Amino acid sequence: METRAEVTKDANRRLRVAIAGFGTVGSAVARILIEQGAASSFELAYILNRRIAKKRVDWMPGSVRWTDDIDEVLDSDVDVFVELMGGLDPAGTWVRRALASGKSVVTANKALIAAEGVALSELACRHRQHLAYGASVAGGVPVLSGLQEGLAGDQLVRVSGILNGTCNYILTRMEDAGLSFADALLEAQRAGFAEADPSADVDGYDARAKITILSRVALGADVDLETVLCRSIRPITAVDLRYAVELGCTIRQISHAEVKDNELHIAVQPMLVERALPHARVVGAQNIVVSTGRYGGETTFSGNGAGGNPTAVAVVSDLVALARLGTTSSESMSPALKKMVASSQFVMPHYTRYLVRDRPGILAAISQVLATYAINVDAVLQLPGHSREALPFAITLEPSSQQALDAAMAEIGKLHFLAQPPLCLPILRKRA
Amino acid sequence: METRAEVTKDANRRLRVAIAGFGTVGSAVARILIEQGAASSFELAYILNRRIAKKRVDWMPGSVRWTDDIDEVLDSDVDVFVELMGGLDPAGTWVRRALASGKSVVTANKALIAAEGVALSELACRHRQHLAYGASVAGGVPVLSGLQEGLAGDQLVRVSGILNGTCNYILTRMEDAGLSFADALLEAQRAGFAEADPSADVDGYDARAKITILSRVALGADVDLETVLCRSIRPITAVDLRYAVELGCTIRQISHAEVKDNELHIAVQPMLVERALPHARVVGAQNIVVSTGRYGGETTFSGNGAGGNPTAVAVVSDLVALARLGTTSSESMSPALKKMVASSQFVMPHYTRYLVRDRPGILAAISQVLATYAINVDAVLQLPGHSREALPFAITLEPSSQQALDAAMAEIGKLHFLAQPPLCLPILRKRA
Repeated sequence: METRAEVTKDANRRLRVAIAGFGTVGSAVARILIEQGAASSFELAYILNRRIAKKRVDWMPGSVRWTDDIDEVLDSDVDVFVELMGGLDPAGTWVRRALASGKSVVTANKALIAAEGVALSELACRHRQHLAYGASVAGGVPVLSGLQEGLAGDQLVRVSGILNGTCNYILTRMEDAGLSFADALLEAQRAGFAEADPSADVDGYDARAKITILSRVALGADVDLETVLCRSIRPITAVDLRYAVELGCTIRQISHAEVKDNELHIAVQPMLVERALPHARVVGAQNIVVSTGRYGGETTFSGNGAGGNPTAVAVVSDLVALARLGTTSSESMSPALKKMVASSQFVMPHYTRYLVRDRPGILAAISQVLATYAINVDAVLQLPGHSREALPFAITLEPSSQQALDAAMAEIGKLHFLAQPPLCLPILRKRA
Repeated sequence: METRAEVTKDANRRLRVAIAGFGTVGSAVARILIEQGAASSFELAYILNRRIAKKRVDWMPGSVRWTDDIDEVLDSDVDVFVELMGGLDPAGTWVRRALASGKSVVTANKALIAAEGVALSELACRHRQHLAYGASVAGGVPVLSGLQEGLAGDQLVRVSGILNGTCNYILTRMEDAGLSFADALLEAQRAGFAEADPSADVDGYDARAKITILSRVALGADVDLETVLCRSIRPITAVDLRYAVELGCTIRQISHAEVKDNELHIAVQPMLVERALPHARVVGAQNIVVSTGRYGGETTFSGNGAGGNPTAVAVVSDLVALARLGTTSSESMSPALKKMVASSQFVMPHYTRYLVRDRPGILAAISQVLATYAINVDAVLQLPGHSREALPFAITLEPSSQQALDAAMAEIGKLHFLAQPPLCLPILRKRA
């Protein structure tokens, strides 16, 4: 039998590739392309980086040109510009210039795609080039292609997931080892899972960029990044994880987006997650995405959401897709997009936790406020072993509107026996 | 902002589609295409079925032509022939004729693709048409596109999964309700999860077709369907599930394929599965596929592996992909394939279970045989509450070659105190 690889090789010229940004992901992409050898559809032509003298590696073939000059790359005959620098600038400028100079672009840059992806796709389209960004969400897990192509025949209505491995690592350690947030963060930083400035991860901005991209690709909903609700995991304490376990749950940073009555409900926030849900079983730095379709029901994708090699797999997979598409115009790849306003008015059950200076009548006072806003109490939990001066207890609430809940929490926050503002987390339960 | 759907609509003529086989999946495909309405890239032109008078439904637009004449469809101007009849004949003949008459083909027919997929892809290629079969494995879970496109940048070395919902339903019920195989099968048949003749499901032939297709797509390994090891779940008893639970496992029908030292290790068989593995958490009729890549590590896909709507999603997604590809020649879609010989010589730990007429010296006799073949015993389990005339007990074994194990089991099977041949199942453990 004739092997079909041979047919392929003659038919297609190898695509010339420039990699901009030779960090962990950039070098992993280069390695994969080089290790593919003669069977590859690609020829690595340029590595673009600042201070290239410090970056050079001995395993790079002599045919690859190292440069710190973007103009040299843009003026060259490379077919694909692989942007792995991250950040909005100069990455955005360079991506626009690459598209305008007739090069397709593959990028792993979630910040850029979340902020300017729609405009960049249109620019690619005008110049009859492709813009691919499969690596921008969930690293090596082929979520974007899975939603956009594998589930193209469905009508997706909801997408949720764990999109930030750092938060997941921290919350997993807080639960397993009873660590405080600060200690778990320190451990994550020492293990290389968190940055010196952890804000992008723990305050949700990283996941917000990803859910913004996901809602575009899965739901066709184009929403302004800045308007997406984003809550930090910093207020979570070890006590909350203990209470969560008592409630048959764990705590995870959950990103979700759902189209409901022509509104886009979208948020990134820590939630109590019922153990029966696949989200609860994602440990360490893994990622998961669960989509819900009108016809196909729930589909789950999970795997390594970060790291040089998994992210590089997503980049190279985008390159392979470009090679397959060839000259197919990029219009036909674009789904219909609808500009939507972000709403965070979910109706969900909630976990609330209060840290109080103990005295009689506390429960009565809190219950009174909740009743005023017609919020029903589901259960009250108080584990023993705490000081009367800083006593944590939890109240779970039946589904209520966000508006009523916000008002109730603001009012409860003013009660003089509270040692700190109450914590309020939605509870994600398995749907019937 | 201009919606990009409008750009698309003008650029592409709508593809004319014929559906052959108007059963559960066929009617679900028709419904999805019709419900897409004006936004659709497709025009449903023909429904082909025997005895069409009995099949007609009132929700079908008048523009759709019903026929029982394949020649009428093949002589028409339809662009895509959607084959949903199943079986090898006449489906295979009609698919070949459709390709030869210049129509692309989308099929959900695992038997046909497992047996003749390579030749059919070559035929499609020669006629510059496309052959897509995303619905043939795991129904609505976009596994084939995920492996072939989403993970195209990786080098996959292993793929395993639960590909038959009927077996999974039966084994789940045997564990949860302590049912015998016969009773669980009867329940599955009554619930519509199993056929009157359950052989294709419970004896592994259905899953064998799917793992054969998966090993082609994921590993580039072309193997003869008939040579793939296939073991039935019929010998599993409720006692085995009880012992499995004692060992921190459950029992699942596992399909797996792995390239090792240029051999393809491939099989469909019931296995003990450690609870920590994602396979163990797949309940009811769900499917799961776990792939392992050289660069990206493990990636998991799961969801609804069967049913009209989920399978229809896979079919329509293939149609969307065809519409996107347009005139791109199908050569470039074909990965390199290598003809490989199936091997079932795995080295794995095993669970063995013996049903004996109790008397002294049984354990000594069995241990003696195992020792002869240099097979190490890991643990011995015997739960109370059984008759001495039919006493089940289990021995777990450290990893050993299949050859030694087969010989030992054959010899043990001859021991006069055995009430039936021993049961021997591999144990799937989480890799370190």
